[in-house]
Formats: sequence, C-alpha cells, structure tokens
Amino acid sequence: MPIVSALLLSALVLTTSTLGVDGRLTLDTMSSSLKRMEYAVRGQVVIAADKIQADLTAHAPGSEDFDFEKILYTNIGNPQSVGQKELTWPRQVLSLVDLPNEVGVDHPDVLKMYPKDAVKRAKEIKLGLGSGSGAYSHSKGAKIFRDDVAAFIKKRDDGVASDPEDIYLTNGASAGIENVLKALIADPSCGMMIPIPQYPIYSALLDLHNGQKVPYYLDEDRCWEINIRELERSLTAAQEAGVNVVGLVLINPGNPTGQVLSKEGVQDVVRFCAANDLVLMSDEVYQENVYDDTPFYSAKRAAYDCGLLEDDRLQLVSFHSASKGVFGECGRRGGYMELVGFDQTVKDHLYKLASSGLCSSISGQIMISLMARGPEKGDESYESHELEKSLIFESLKRRSKIVEAGLNAVEGMSCQPAQGAMYCFPSVQVPDRAIEAAAKLGLPPDTFYALSLLERTGVCVVPASGFGQRKGRFGFRTTFLPQEEDLSNAVSAIRRHHEEFSLKYK
Amino acid sequence: MPIVSALLLSALVLTTSTLGVDGRLTLDTMSSSLKRMEYAVRGQVVIAADKIQADLTAHAPGSEDFDFEKILYTNIGNPQSVGQKELTWPRQVLSLVDLPNEVGVDHPDVLKMYPKDAVKRAKEIKLGLGSGSGAYSHSKGAKIFRDDVAAFIKKRDDGVASDPEDIYLTNGASAGIENVLKALIADPSCGMMIPIPQYPIYSALLDLHNGQKVPYYLDEDRCWEINIRELERSLTAAQEAGVNVVGLVLINPGNPTGQVLSKEGVQDVVRFCAANDLVLMSDEVYQENVYDDTPFYSAKRAAYDCGLLEDDRLQLVSFHSASKGVFGECGRRGGYMELVGFDQTVKDHLYKLASSGLCSSISGQIMISLMARGPEKGDESYESHELEKSLIFESLKRRSKIVEAGLNAVEGMSCQPAQGAMYCFPSVQVPDRAIEAAAKLGLPPDTFYALSLLERTGVCVVPASGFGQRKGRFGFRTTFLPQEEDLSNAVSAIRRHHEEFSLKYK
Repeated sequence: MPIVSALLLSALVLTTSTLGVDGRLTLDTMSSSLKRMEYAVRGQVVIAADKIQADLTAHAPGSEDFDFEKILYTNIGNPQSVGQKELTWPRQVLSLVDLPNEVGVDHPDVLKMYPKDAVKRAKEIKLGLGSGSGAYSHSKGAKIFRDDVAAFIKKRDDGVASDPEDIYLTNGASAGIENVLKALIADPSCGMMIPIPQYPIYSALLDLHNGQKVPYYLDEDRCWEINIRELERSLTAAQEAGVNVVGLVLINPGNPTGQVLSKEGVQDVVRFCAANDLVLMSDEVYQENVYDDTPFYSAKRAAYDCGLLEDDRLQLVSFHSASKGVFGECGRRGGYMELVGFDQTVKDHLYKLASSGLCSSISGQIMISLMARGPEKGDESYESHELEKSLIFESLKRRSKIVEAGLNAVEGMSCQPAQGAMYCFPSVQVPDRAIEAAAKLGLPPDTFYALSLLERTGVCVVPASGFGQRKGRFGFRTTFLPQEEDLSNAVSAIRRHHEEFSLKYK
Repeated sequence: MPIVSALLLSALVLTTSTLGVDGRLTLDTMSSSLKRMEYAVRGQVVIAADKIQADLTAHAPGSEDFDFEKILYTNIGNPQSVGQKELTWPRQVLSLVDLPNEVGVDHPDVLKMYPKDAVKRAKEIKLGLGSGSGAYSHSKGAKIFRDDVAAFIKKRDDGVASDPEDIYLTNGASAGIENVLKALIADPSCGMMIPIPQYPIYSALLDLHNGQKVPYYLDEDRCWEINIRELERSLTAAQEAGVNVVGLVLINPGNPTGQVLSKEGVQDVVRFCAANDLVLMSDEVYQENVYDDTPFYSAKRAAYDCGLLEDDRLQLVSFHSASKGVFGECGRRGGYMELVGFDQTVKDHLYKLASSGLCSSISGQIMISLMARGPEKGDESYESHELEKSLIFESLKRRSKIVEAGLNAVEGMSCQPAQGAMYCFPSVQVPDRAIEAAAKLGLPPDTFYALSLLERTGVCVVPASGFGQRKGRFGFRTTFLPQEEDLSNAVSAIRRHHEEFSLKYK
C-alpha cells in the first residue's frame, strides 16, 4: 500500500472549493474567522484515523490491506478512552446524587451497593444543591462546590487565600478560556502571547475571535523552559508591529511539551506580566501530572511570593480541570477558573457572560468538587481511593518513561524529558525527499509523516505543526495514555515505521 | 419601605465608571461587544433578588422589613429549582451508567436498587459508549445517542428522514445556537432576523459576535402569531439599511410569548426563508410543552410538506433540549441541533468548531437519548415513567391556566393564551408618574415595575424590556413553574402589588 493513499487523501483536508449559491450559507459566505481556525488535536490525521477505524470495523474493501486490526489513538489526552479505569468513590457519589432520594440515599438497600461515605457525601451535596443535579445552578457554579475548590487552592498554595466568589466552574477548562478571551480581545489589534509549541485551543480561539497570535518560543534544548529574554523579544516585536498585546498564555505543566516549569521560571513570567500589564492566563490543568523532582508551582503562588497579589498588581486567571490528573473524567466537562486581581466591573461582565450560558454541567461541577475534596482519613473509602489514585499515577509515571526512552532510542528522533502532563513531543528528522513528497500533496512534512505512520501502523499521533514549532523542525505529539503493553507496542511500531520511512525517502 | 430602595439600587446595574489603569483589563479596555451584550433572564432584577435572598438567609439588618420569607423565582425556565420532581427511570439509568461495572450493573445486589429495564439500558449505553461516561465522545456526540435522536425526529415528523451524521449533541441548546451564529456572522454587516419579543440569548450572542439584530414583530393581538407581511417589511428595511441579512430565528413554541404557531404560520416562515436564502434557526426546545389544541409542527416537517427539503432549497438548523419538556433536566446541559440542507464543506467547519470544544457533557448526551427513547411498552418502568411524565404535563397545563386567568383578572393587565412553553408575557399598564420615576433612576419603566414587585412581594419576574417589545408597551415574563399553591400565591401577590403600584403612581 502506498504511503498516504488515495483512501486517506479523500478523508483529508477541509476543501476550499464551493458550489454555493449567492446568499446561502456556503464556504464563500461563512465566517472567515471560522474557516481560518485550526484545531489539530481532532484535525485531519484524526479524521483519517476515524475513517480507517470505520472501514476496519465494517470490513470495507481495501481495509484488509492494513497491517493492524484497530487504530491506537494517542492523539488526545482522553485517558478513559484508552483503558484508564474510572475512580470508584467519585463515581459512587455522582451516581447517588443523581438518584431521587427514595430510590437512592433513602433506599433501604443503599448500603448494600454504596459505601457509607459515598452516601454521606451525596446527602451533603444534595442538601447544598437544594434542588439536586437537575436544576441550573448559580452561573458561576453551585456555591458548595466553589467552596471546595477555594479550599483546595488555598491548601495547594500553602495558605494563600482563595475567594469562592472569584471561582467560576466551567464546561471543562476550554469554556473558561474562551470566555476570558472574549473579554480580552476588544478589537482585531489585540493580541495574546502564546507559547510555541502551544495547545491549539489558544490559536483556534484567537483565530475565531479575531485576536492576534503573538508567539514566544520555548527553549527545546533546556527542556522547553521559558526564557525571559525571548518573552521580551516577542512582546517588543509585536508592539513594534502595532499589536496591542493584552495578555500572555502560560501552560504549566506543558502541553504538548511536557515540561514542568521551575519556581524561578514561573516567577519570571508573573513579574513580566505585571510589569507589562498583561493578563496572565495560566493553564494548569496538568498540575497533578508531575513525574519528576520539580514540584508544581502555581502562578498564583508565584504572584504571592513576588508580592504581586498586593494592590492587584497582577491580573491572573488560572484554569484547572477534572479531565486530567488521575481522575481523567473528560466526559464530565468539569473545569474551573480562578480570577485574581480584576476590577469588580470586569468580573461583573464575566459573570454576565457566564449567565448567558446559564451554568456548566452539574455532573462536571460535582466531579470537580470530589477532586478538590476526597474522602477523609478514616472514611470507609479513604484507603481504596488513595490506592486507586496512586496506581494510576505510578503507571502514568512509568509510561512517560517508556515513551520518552523508547523514542530517544530511535535514530533520528529526540525527545525531551516528560516531566509532566500526558505527552511526549519528539523532534523527528524528515528526509528532504519526504519533504518534497509532502509539498506535492500540499501537506506540511510532519502531517505527511503522521499520515504515513497512521497508515502503516494504526498509531494516531498529532503532527507537531498543529502546535507550532520553529521553522525547519518536524515532529509529533503522542500521549502516553494507552495501557503499558499497548504503549510498548506503539513505541516499537513508531520505531519500525521511522526506519522504513527514512529508508524509503533517503 | 420605599419602592426601589437604596438596597436594591446598590445591587443594580453594571456600572460604566472605571478606575482602570492603561493597559490593564478594565471596563475601558475590555471588549465593547461584551459590554454591550445584555442577558435579562439573569440580569439586574435577578441580581437584586439574589441579594435579598442572601440577606434574608443571613438575617441581615433591614431584611426583617420585607413582607416575605423567601424569593419566589419565576424568572427562569428552571423547573427542578422550584419543586418539579426528577423523572425516576432516566435518573436510574444515568446513575448506573456512571457506576463502574463491578459496583454497578454487575453488582450482585443491583436489582435490589434498580429496575431491570434500567440495568438493561445502562448496559446497552455502556456497550455503545465503549469507554463509558468518563471519556470525551465523538465531538458531535456518541453515535448511539445520535441514532436515538434521529429516530425520535423521524417518528415525530411522521417518517421524514433524519441522518444521525447531521445531528450534533450540544451543552444545552445555547451552545449549538452560539456555534451556528459564529459561522453565520461573517462580518459586522451580517444580521439575523429575530422575533420581538425574543428569548435574549439571540440578542446577547448577536451583540457578542458583532452581528446585527433585525427585529420582526410578533402580533400580540393575534396571540403572537407571525405575520408574513411583517417579515417582508423587516427584511426590506434591513436590506435598505445595508444589512446583509443571513438568517432568521423562529421560536416555536414561543419564548417569552408562549404561543404555538399554526401549520400555516410555520409554512409561511420556511417558504420565506427559502425564497430569500435565509438560514432558518428554529428554536423548538418547548416542542413537548403544548397545552391546547394546536399540535406542535416542526420547521423540518413544514419544509418537507412544502417540498423544500428537495435540492437543499431550505437551510435549517433546529434545536431541542433535555432542559424543558417534562424532563426539565437543566443541570445536565443536554441539547441537540439538526442540520438540514447545508453543504458538506460548511458542515465540516461546524464539526471542526465542535471539535475545538471536544464534546458536550456525556451526562447531557445520555439524558437526551433517554428523552428520545424511553422504556418500551411491557418494560418494568414503562407505566410508572409514562405516569410521572403525564402528571408533570397535566400540572403544567393547569398552572398555565392559573397564571393566564389570574393575570387577565387584574385590571390593567392583559395576557395572551399560554398555549405552550413555560411562560406568560402580560402587558401591564404603567402610570405616567411611574414612568417618570423610573426615568429619574435611569431605568426602563418595566424594570422599575419588576423591582417594585420584587421588593414588595418577593416574586422575581423578568421585565419585558429584556425581551424587546413595541414602543410604549410595558410588561414582564413570568414562568408558571412554581408548584400550584406557590403559584396561586404569586398571582395574588402580583395583583396586590399592581393595585398598590397603580394607586401610588396615579
């Protein structure tokens, strides 16, 4: 089978031709911001993978030519889709909260199925919600859950205060990010500094809302650290080009890059933002996914340590989620953001914006609260809950090393340490002849490479070009989420494919 | 206590003054689209109500002066917040799907707590989801649920085909509406025709995304029917003013107006949209809430009956939700939209947009599927589920009449029949002296009226000005969702307040 076959190409790019009639909604008349927007994590390689998977399942003609039986999706941080078990206790609480009392917490046999501490917490939540899980909550999220989150943040940051009124529970972190950007991008002259490589929700939403992307480059050789001089270069260059730079996105631990920033690195960033009046959007959804010795250090804690919480000298929004960590509860769409240092009037308008979406999913709100406050020591489920969390965490840590070491062992690949998050982001040597072949198909070289990998091995990664990278660099992002045996097989497949690909285009 | 006291005013309007420093995010620098946007359903009257409720709960100084013990919220279609019971069977299925197998469907005591048909459906859903409720699904929503929705639509429309690939499950109907508007509003010259009065999500999102609001007026005297000549007038006027009119919003059954459109009315609209190349956004979230003899007639069915599904002559998006009907599951954030008559390329970009939000809440997706397909005849829960639904429906129907009749009995109020939805939208005579008093406070007369009602009676309604209305008309929207006794008391309180208010400002 040829690399990047017709089968794949047919499923590929969003076409730019149109058969539209004037006045109708067609490619010609639709929003150009939407057309321009890209979102690689579920982009063209994944669409091609879905097509192959559907063909494999349906035994479609041609599908027997593939050397694999199913797609191994490593394109997205979606732990439970690739075998991670749900945590038992949070699901038991969630399940009980959703049951009407008489067939749930008050059912005579409830303790036959549910542990006591799940019943107790479910009753607390029901009492706190007042009208249960089927009503819209306050648009910021139910107060009881915001209290739990504020206490969690305060504990994490060694006592730095957190106000539940400044916490917004959102449909995943993404929804919070979008709302903040809506407020920040006042007109098309406004720009946000974003790391390169970055998680593409930022570039996608900036395209969609007509904001400018102001790239600052992470330092790959220093394990993707942030360099303060690069921040200054980036800001000055943008300002000289007439961009009104309004904020900066920090992703720590990094996505797609997997680094955990040092204390000094985070402090550099908060000082830089405060000095330049930039709103800091700190994406901290991987704060529990830290596998080596650098502990997670929050932007808020850094602001406190630098004295920037006084007089609202820093404007900071930090984001977290129940989708990552060891919960991996992506399907709940549970996230939160905390606002620090904003005027009340700005907060009023952000609240109005939240109101227009009514409220975030209550099941996501519940899950965030259970992540913020687990069973207590001595409770029936305490030990088993801690054990489940630790098994997942230790396995993630092992898996990060399997992939990091496995990719580094491939000649022509180089991968920085996976200190945190759920990803490795190797650079890959792509031969010149492959670059030419890609150009003929109108594809970025690493998209061509990722499609070839997909077609030969069934391993679905995201081309590095979807996240941004320095000119001339090529690579991909892979999660290390599949279970250990699958993951080892995937690493071997990636190696085999790379050897074959290098040979073919030598 | 004075009407519209200082207490209330302090909690009122989003201020327009600012203490901001250049460069920071302040009221001056933030997006003017966001500032302009209004969302009355959770707007200033509700913020004032929340303040009073908090003071009452905390026994704050001054709160003992109120003649009521709690706020009665009739501002929002949030049934379970005002006493509507959750339906048992859907909650049992949801609850079981969320439990890990070994403590859920496979637990030896599961049938002691759950009926057989809930266990069966939960197993089906788990099998169909593959990775359970904790993983991101396909960005359009899990295929099994879209199949259920397509079958539901086909049955509702007497066999007109529905393709699961054209169905998107969304975080409530709101999220779908926003995504479609993002595609439609290509630049600030684009406008959408919206009914006046309208549900304010449309005006809010048009403001936010810099689209123009093109009002067409509903005919209050003819029970808020749509008048085709008014549609033509509205379109022509906008086009003459240079607006590129790209679509039309239909809300049927009406919100806030409560009418159920006739077959002819809906056919007029679909023909008008097809003839003028307008994308029809048909908000049909109250399609199950129809209390008199006019049956609900979907825009898609009308398009079929008018031959407009052939050759994609009409471009239609219709919206539905698990938040209304008799489910009232607002907290799930479960909605769907169905696309009809769009080019594949446009659908590809809408899919990309959905992908950037990853997926909608799985608990919302599950609830929509259970609404689309309940237990089957002969199943253990069939009779009880039907009975629960019918009790809620019949009570809603009675309550619609209590409010409609009660308001019409007040001298100086006039209320059209509440044929459907969850709202009455009376017009109210406001004396000239009250209009002057409102102007002194910088308030629309009916906001002043609603605040007075709130302060005197604890009944929280939404001023009609938040939905739009003809110049010189005043009024409010009230739900008829509180339970029957509360609702009768509310109607009496509204009457008492109106008499007192009229006397005071005579």
